[in-house]
Amino acid sequence: MSGEFVSGLKCRLCGKVYPKEALNFCTEDFGPLEVAYNYEAVAKSFTRQAIESRPRTMWRYRELLPVDGEPTVGRHVGGTPLIRADRLAKALGLRELYVKNDAVNHPSLSFKDRVVAVALSKAVELGFETVGCASTGNLAGSVAANAAAAGLNAYVLIPDNLEQGKVLGATIYGAKVIAIQGNYDHVNRLCSQIAFRFGWGFVNVNLRPFYAEGSKSMGFEIAEDMGWRIPDQVVVPMAGGSLIGKLHKSFKELERLGLVSGPVNTKMYGAQATGCNPIANTVKTDALRVKPVRNPDTIAKSLAIGDPADGYFASQLIRDTGGWSEDVDDDAIVDSMRLLAETEGIWAETAGGVTVAVARKLIAQGKIDRDASTVLCITGNGLKTQEALIDKIARPVVIKPSLAEFEALVGAESPELVATEA
Amino acid sequence: MSGEFVSGLKCRLCGKVYPKEALNFCTEDFGPLEVAYNYEAVAKSFTRQAIESRPRTMWRYRELLPVDGEPTVGRHVGGTPLIRADRLAKALGLRELYVKNDAVNHPSLSFKDRVVAVALSKAVELGFETVGCASTGNLAGSVAANAAAAGLNAYVLIPDNLEQGKVLGATIYGAKVIAIQGNYDHVNRLCSQIAFRFGWGFVNVNLRPFYAEGSKSMGFEIAEDMGWRIPDQVVVPMAGGSLIGKLHKSFKELERLGLVSGPVNTKMYGAQATGCNPIANTVKTDALRVKPVRNPDTIAKSLAIGDPADGYFASQLIRDTGGWSEDVDDDAIVDSMRLLAETEGIWAETAGGVTVAVARKLIAQGKIDRDASTVLCITGNGLKTQEALIDKIARPVVIKPSLAEFEALVGAESPELVATEA
Ligand SMILES: Cc1ncc(COP(=O)(O)O)c(C=O)c1O
Ligand SMILES: Cc1ncc(COP(=O)(O)O)c(C=O)c1O
Ligand SMILES: [Zn+2]
Ligand SMILES: [Zn+2]
Repeated sequence: MSGEFVSGLKCRLCGKVYPKEALNFCTEDFGPLEVAYNYEAVAKSFTRQAIESRPRTMWRYRELLPVDGEPTVGRHVGGTPLIRADRLAKALGLRELYVKNDAVNHPSLSFKDRVVAVALSKAVELGFETVGCASTGNLAGSVAANAAAAGLNAYVLIPDNLEQGKVLGATIYGAKVIAIQGNYDHVNRLCSQIAFRFGWGFVNVNLRPFYAEGSKSMGFEIAEDMGWRIPDQVVVPMAGGSLIGKLHKSFKELERLGLVSGPVNTKMYGAQATGCNPIANTVKTDALRVKPVRNPDTIAKSLAIGDPADGYFASQLIRDTGGWSEDVDDDAIVDSMRLLAETEGIWAETAGGVTVAVARKLIAQGKIDRDASTVLCITGNGLKTQEALIDKIARPVVIKPSLAEFEALVGAESPELVATEA
Repeated sequence: MSGEFVSGLKCRLCGKVYPKEALNFCTEDFGPLEVAYNYEAVAKSFTRQAIESRPRTMWRYRELLPVDGEPTVGRHVGGTPLIRADRLAKALGLRELYVKNDAVNHPSLSFKDRVVAVALSKAVELGFETVGCASTGNLAGSVAANAAAAGLNAYVLIPDNLEQGKVLGATIYGAKVIAIQGNYDHVNRLCSQIAFRFGWGFVNVNLRPFYAEGSKSMGFEIAEDMGWRIPDQVVVPMAGGSLIGKLHKSFKELERLGLVSGPVNTKMYGAQATGCNPIANTVKTDALRVKPVRNPDTIAKSLAIGDPADGYFASQLIRDTGGWSEDVDDDAIVDSMRLLAETEGIWAETAGGVTVAVARKLIAQGKIDRDASTVLCITGNGLKTQEALIDKIARPVVIKPSLAEFEALVGAESPELVATEA
């Protein structure tokens, strides 16, 4: 691995190129910056064979992840399973369905470990000793965990209404966790000020161009695990709107480099909660600009970003690829969390319920093709959002340790009951 | 894969061989049965090269896992990271330390997915449609999740004092979860009766010989990830005492088949909580028999088995290999959970705290060699045992979304504070 693959940071509006530094917007027009690659250099070593011979972590796609040297943070991130989901497919009425399960990502059980691995490896290269983030929950845990493993100081800022598992899942690592009275947009604005004032490396502020690229590894893994094929349809939960764009970019990069046979025509479907649906609303109303949601209110707290940084690009991408976007209410989210668990044995957090419920809705609307290959992105773990379920799932029946009590309980429902007495 | 590798079930006491059926004890002497292999047949295809060419799941070691056909349950289990843990090593005063992180196992975040994948694949082969388990928590979630994915009915029996995450982590999958007034030993006895009476496949009762073998995959992965080397010392949490024995067996099998250069002299160290230490106590008092603990009382609920099924064999193994066993109190468990999180970014459940704390104690006692290679087995996830921490970890400071408030908070502790005003 070396610095030759990344040529710089390029403005998504005017195309101006900046050097590889901790900078996230163009000084001319405030357009967001994106990592630009030298694809000719990449092509030399980025082959199927080379990739398959490397350890099964996100770093097997290292030529297209913007770290110049060996990664120093999050070396074991990625390599999560892609599940052929036939039981869920049957329930949804789809022919070929896959679930990408980032709910078991090492170390912190969400896809955020991918973006953090890149951002913090880059932070180390750039000489930062203190890092931080503005988070809706998962990023908090990921920055805290990965910073701890790397011996970096971490400041993690979150809204003050997060789930217990998300809060404990950041404080446990010794990070300085600060809850802000307000919603994510308040937290985010404060973090921009802090990053600038203190000269710290905030993964989703001044390190955002590097950070965002980490999500591509999820797309590379999907393609490789489908046998170097690109799915026809992908359903992606959206908060800031970054992941959905990077998944699509990853497919296009594989096409460009000849690792999959094109053309890539994947339709991108974006999933949000009705209580915070700025991007879905933009798509559905065919609006030109994203109208921020002032007071997000949903159990899908990890997706509760009212003013999404990449909302404009996400809604454009969804339209351009022929996909669509929908939003679902809290009851539908819980129902779909259960459906996923009961059919595929995967307990996703509320954001996963959003993804499955939106898929269901779009299938019913005829917007998702039942006969095309479809991937649902599960990006976080159900253990982190127990609050959403605790009053909606029946508690266990309690009995004495007695066979008679057990028989009385299950008697009628035991078709395999054998005749012989114990 | 085919049936030729498993020759039968063999009594660990008298050596009598039984066919591959749902049977866990010898009808002559009630000795436990263990899967016996035809190692000559295994040797033909079980080579480093063959293994490395297979997908990175536990099934890459399929010749030594007792399923006759293709596995049908838990096909994506295993392949968890082995972390070189230099920061924890420094804190503990060790030279070469690794952490095996089964806290991110797919699907249910504990090493139990390994044993359940084997037991339920076997259950399907044997024609069971209803399966079950007696569980201290992790097995409950794993049976529930894997049974759901396979479309099997599941009865999950647990003591009535388990953590919320463990209970919800079983009910969410639609399993029939029944809480028993009593401790694990009561639950286990009832399950033996149920399995027999109803003719169901209980993974750790009548399917136990198959089930237990699944743990070997953790040992195979450790050896492969160390570059086909066997560690000198392994610290393993013990409940029923099965895992520790199977890890050792996996190393011996690799030696026997020539995949590692022997002799294997690994010292096995068993970790328990002081509130439930039947095996550790047996080792420490040099007793011949395991004296059951009547009323287990520890925050490490997943290890709270007072009358361990494999306690005798575990204590013998520990002695025979030159290892040792210790137990630690609840405060030490919490301290070590924090140490692991702060140094390596891994949030383990209480059982992981037991492992790290016991390692610490044995290092201080001089029983673990600081200069020998050491592996700590982390077997479950911290999100499942939040109760143990919630009152012991400081809650986040809450501030308004204001840079001034943030500066007031961190002012003194920000060495990198830059001079320029925002
Ligand atoms: C679980 C989960 N899924 C999806 C997302 C959406 O990511 P993005 O902000 O890139 O749209 C987030 C963001 O926090 C998340 O936590
Ligand atoms: C997290 C965890 N670690 C270790 C063990 C111990 O396994 P064994 O019963 O094989 O000794 C268990 C058993 O329940 C467990 O849940
Ligand atoms: Zn510009
Ligand atoms: Zn016998």
